[in-house]
Amino acid sequence: MIYLDYASATPVRFEVLKEMEKYHMVLFANPSSIHEAGLQVAQALDQAVARVRTILGAGSNDHVLFTSGGTESINLAIQGVVLASTRKRKHIITTSLEHKAVLETCAFLSEKYGVRVTYIAPRANGIVRVRDIVNAITPDTILISVMYANNEIGTIQPLREIGAVARRKGIIFHTDACQAGCYADLDVSRLGVDLMTLNSGKMYGPKGAGLLYVRKGVSLVPLMYGGSQQSGLRPGTENVAGIMGFVKALELAQKERVREVKRLITLRDGFIEKILKAIPDSRLNGDAVCRLANNINLSFRGVEGEALVRYLSQQKIYVSTASACSAHSIEVSHVIKEIGVPTSYARGTIRLTLGKETTRKEMEMVGKKVGEIVNVLRRV
Amino acid sequence: MIYLDYASATPVRFEVLKEMEKYHMVLFANPSSIHEAGLQVAQALDQAVARVRTILGAGSNDHVLFTSGGTESINLAIQGVVLASTRKRKHIITTSLEHKAVLETCAFLSEKYGVRVTYIAPRANGIVRVRDIVNAITPDTILISVMYANNEIGTIQPLREIGAVARRKGIIFHTDACQAGCYADLDVSRLGVDLMTLNSGKMYGPKGAGLLYVRKGVSLVPLMYGGSQQSGLRPGTENVAGIMGFVKALELAQKERVREVKRLITLRDGFIEKILKAIPDSRLNGDAVCRLANNINLSFRGVEGEALVRYLSQQKIYVSTASACSAHSIEVSHVIKEIGVPTSYARGTIRLTLGKETTRKEMEMVGKKVGEIVNVLRRV
Repeated sequence: MIYLDYASATPVRFEVLKEMEKYHMVLFANPSSIHEAGLQVAQALDQAVARVRTILGAGSNDHVLFTSGGTESINLAIQGVVLASTRKRKHIITTSLEHKAVLETCAFLSEKYGVRVTYIAPRANGIVRVRDIVNAITPDTILISVMYANNEIGTIQPLREIGAVARRKGIIFHTDACQAGCYADLDVSRLGVDLMTLNSGKMYGPKGAGLLYVRKGVSLVPLMYGGSQQSGLRPGTENVAGIMGFVKALELAQKERVREVKRLITLRDGFIEKILKAIPDSRLNGDAVCRLANNINLSFRGVEGEALVRYLSQQKIYVSTASACSAHSIEVSHVIKEIGVPTSYARGTIRLTLGKETTRKEMEMVGKKVGEIVNVLRRV
Repeated sequence: MIYLDYASATPVRFEVLKEMEKYHMVLFANPSSIHEAGLQVAQALDQAVARVRTILGAGSNDHVLFTSGGTESINLAIQGVVLASTRKRKHIITTSLEHKAVLETCAFLSEKYGVRVTYIAPRANGIVRVRDIVNAITPDTILISVMYANNEIGTIQPLREIGAVARRKGIIFHTDACQAGCYADLDVSRLGVDLMTLNSGKMYGPKGAGLLYVRKGVSLVPLMYGGSQQSGLRPGTENVAGIMGFVKALELAQKERVREVKRLITLRDGFIEKILKAIPDSRLNGDAVCRLANNINLSFRGVEGEALVRYLSQQKIYVSTASACSAHSIEVSHVIKEIGVPTSYARGTIRLTLGKETTRKEMEMVGKKVGEIVNVLRRV
């Protein structure tokens, strides 16, 4: 098989699996227990928080909350900030390119609490203008939430510039960095973010683990109530093995990042160049340069993307149309719509996301197959 | 080491670890992906739901929602039912013995939404009277939440009788069955429950996984918003390995239940008898018969439970004072208070919870050590 859907899910890497095994079988006690077995686990968790702080360049009083994944972290960040605010009128700025976890959470807050939400549209290259965000700020704006990199077209947003604006205006800034974890600088000080969501299942850690970085001083209302774990902001016995595996994966990903980004960009750009040359009426969606090292998003005129995915799947080549989270939708993805891909192309969109195991040989094989199948489909 | 804190956390059993490994490394695709690799995982998840329905005696239209653990399931059940109800005045009946996840969620709903909550106190044996619940019902009562078995003193509540009452009155009935998963009948029809919380980390499955059984027709408001996974009631990529491991653990626990319960009751009752005979001014807390097969909760007059736990820990014997979730509290546990343990005994409480690896020899050794240490502490 050739797996090119790493943006949807990654396998757990071996080092992470070994780390988790230890906490499943040996250091399995409850970290809240006061006996030695529990204290040992509590210590490991404390160290895990410290290790994350180091990777993120976070302060020693900043919170690192471990959650069940990206969706929970995003909900905790956005619901948490908005419901903690005592302001009478509340305004959120986000983008029209966000993941559904952001869009649906904003929709919920708007519907249930009358929170006003501005959705900034991107330019045709899939990147938002900082100026548009600045212009949308009102005295009621309490939160800006902009994804680090888009999950479909891989475009990287200008976080530092947005962070600088947010800081100047005293507005809390959250970023959904789920897709960026392996490929971008996660230093929260350099980026100027107050809240950052990361997802283990997209970075060769286990699914069912995520984190929310919370800068000191940012108040959150929890989603759940119970024990006093994680300062009461995220009660419940910690998913110890998941957390320890996730932190290991995060460390390794960031350690290998620069080299891996270089390797993937070569594969990515080689593939794109060949396809655009070989297949007429094809186009790359999203900025060619300012995009994730592992993301390729292409549209072919007069082809059904879903058919292309299924034909490739029959050849054991696994790619996707949009994000997995909306893969079952028959609509053109909101991201593809937002960047104004012409209708004749829009339905013919596929996403290939590369990863650790991806080789040049695989990419050549896939390039050939994509060409063949597009031809077949266009003839039907 | 002798681990007697299985109510706080269990190790992951080997069969479960093997099952999880498969989904971490091989069947790792996103179950929402439409390629073959994703469909295979989606199928495994569908089968997992069906397997849980079989174990629980659930209908084919009943929901099984996989969550991140007991706390999330409980919050989803209680917040979910209360916030979904369009009734103007809302009343919950629960017990004063519940886990903090129930008590704190009720407190939140009371504080934020003015929901009225009645906390039924147990009899001195740690079991609530069904009559007291019946008497507490008002026309505003929308939810009864009673734990299956208590996490500290192990007493088993009369779920069937409460379920019958709830059904007759048309009130939704939730049970927190986190401690009962390995030791009690989980058939939701026989029990008459509409919602049931189970926690993987207490039944030799991985931490960070739990489930909420939801009878068909029960409306819930989700805690989080995002993708359409799990009918939108619990969005986010499923923790596939965690779920598959949990379901395996649940199946094995229920298969081995009758034999294991018998084995543990013999160990439990032998230990209790010896201790009560050997140590003057000692008492068993909670009903001697109607309690979990693995639970021993004892109080010793004029002794500090925490000191006892620490001394035992130095001998590599791991027990607890109360539940792990409130282990760091210096107060006497609310459960011990509620059943009226005399003050001179209350602070000298320890909980020993047995498990799969517990042997007669271990229990004999622990019995001896407890006797010695109680003597030492009483002399100080």
